Amino acid sequence: MDILDHLTIPSPLHQVRTAWSAAAAIELYIKRDDLIHPIISGNKWRKLSGILSHYDKTTYREIITFGGAFSNHLVATAASCAILKIPCTGIIRGEEPKQLNGVLKLCEMYGMRLTFVSREEYKEHNRQLGIYEEKLFIPEGGACEQGTLGCFEVLREIELKEISKVFVACGTGTTIAGMSKFMDSTNDGTPLYGIQVLKGNGYIAKDLQDVYGIHNVTIYDEFHCGGYAKTSPELMDFIKEFTSETGILLDPVYTGKMMLAIKKLCISGDIKKGDKVIAIHTGGLTGWFGKVDEL
Amino acid sequence: MDILDHLTIPSPLHQVRTAWSAAAAIELYIKRDDLIHPIISGNKWRKLSGILSHYDKTTYREIITFGGAFSNHLVATAASCAILKIPCTGIIRGEEPKQLNGVLKLCEMYGMRLTFVSREEYKEHNRQLGIYEEKLFIPEGGACEQGTLGCFEVLREIELKEISKVFVACGTGTTIAGMSKFMDSTNDGTPLYGIQVLKGNGYIAKDLQDVYGIHNVTIYDEFHCGGYAKTSPELMDFIKEFTSETGILLDPVYTGKMMLAIKKLCISGDIKKGDKVIAIHTGGLTGWFGKVDEL
Repeated sequence: MDILDHLTIPSPLHQVRTAWSAAAAIELYIKRDDLIHPIISGNKWRKLSGILSHYDKTTYREIITFGGAFSNHLVATAASCAILKIPCTGIIRGEEPKQLNGVLKLCEMYGMRLTFVSREEYKEHNRQLGIYEEKLFIPEGGACEQGTLGCFEVLREIELKEISKVFVACGTGTTIAGMSKFMDSTNDGTPLYGIQVLKGNGYIAKDLQDVYGIHNVTIYDEFHCGGYAKTSPELMDFIKEFTSETGILLDPVYTGKMMLAIKKLCISGDIKKGDKVIAIHTGGLTGWFGKVDEL
Repeated sequence: MDILDHLTIPSPLHQVRTAWSAAAAIELYIKRDDLIHPIISGNKWRKLSGILSHYDKTTYREIITFGGAFSNHLVATAASCAILKIPCTGIIRGEEPKQLNGVLKLCEMYGMRLTFVSREEYKEHNRQLGIYEEKLFIPEGGACEQGTLGCFEVLREIELKEISKVFVACGTGTTIAGMSKFMDSTNDGTPLYGIQVLKGNGYIAKDLQDVYGIHNVTIYDEFHCGGYAKTSPELMDFIKEFTSETGILLDPVYTGKMMLAIKKLCISGDIKKGDKVIAIHTGGLTGWFGKVDEL
């Protein structure tokens, strides 16, 4: 069975209205990649699709990938491999815990073998990509050139005419790199903005230039709310307000920070009255499995 | 915005093949109501849709519903109300815990107000249905005649010609009651089987006869694996095996028990070589939020 039979592709585009988007007099649209699949959600699928479409199934017999203990990429890979009937292994950063968390248990449920390695050993291999001894290695988070190609597709599904600005959350920059390539390939001038969810002065902007030669995007590096997977009371209150107003669940690691940034950019005037803004919803429910205590 | 814009309706029908379905030489199909929405999943939506379509929005200004602390119905109602912009309250059975679990926190995230009442008080009201003082009361689990009407739709989406047997998990019997009404209305003779997930000798079969006047279904009451929300090592092993073989996640409360029953009925010979069997996947991911420790 084709994995696409399991997925909602193209994902819907929804217009939403909140108190602050109405006050700013903007039109706000959300690309619902969170509705692609309950587990294989958002840009996790987009990146996997780009990688898998580049590798011939006859040349590998197992998939090996890398992640932290709460990695959405790991569980999305596990579920994809179960559907595709490909054996898979997850290499997990850090010591094996006494009790597996929900994300890792779901990985096992889908049949992924879990191997725990020290942080030092992990760091040596987590960016490995390619086929070695019939094993396809996928880097942590699907962050690689082939991963960007699936992210290309997000914008191909949207009519961009009359859109003022497109926003997306950025961890590694893979997703926005793919979107940028799409803009280039179509000569579309719609400005593309990334919200960096990790601390660090402009490292994604630098990576995009150095690794992919990309200059046509703007990365905001001041909306990380304390760093990767960190939350603040302001962020949690905002997510709750947005979710109850729209029925669209944001996660505290990526999409919550992106949307809070959009609100702040409305207040600062960087997003202007009359702007038509698209926010890419890159993820789904599994982001909450590691965060239940903070909900 | 119409709530249907958020949902994958009709849900897909997938053929799957496992070691045991191949050994039994049956054709196994799964109606993927788990793919309807990450939160508003399966028969929770089917029941809500039947109830909401029966009540005029001009006659109520709030929705009030009932559930236990791990109720998928509560969170599906909360998410639906957020999308529909209807204020809502959840009446929860039992004392307020010091720390809310993931299901109740998601309810709050979607803006549901939570009220905790004693088990005695809860029992007096949990079956309340109807509009009082502009408030629409929905019974626990959406279990009511109007709820059955949404479940009618599950089978309307399937081509039943040449199907030997249809299976569904049963808690209250609302879902199978709706499916039975559909079979009646179309004069379709495909046999319908319910797998009772609670302990109790034939109470659903009795309810179906007494409450709905339904006689055309068969309820198996011996596959509950210990009772409602109880699990067994056999069940957990089976769910893991099925999920890794097919990429379709079962839950331990409803769909896992239904599918294990189907396997056992293949072994016992009640399901025969050549049979074409449809299993209704009534639910999604939120069933796991309360079960992470048992995964």
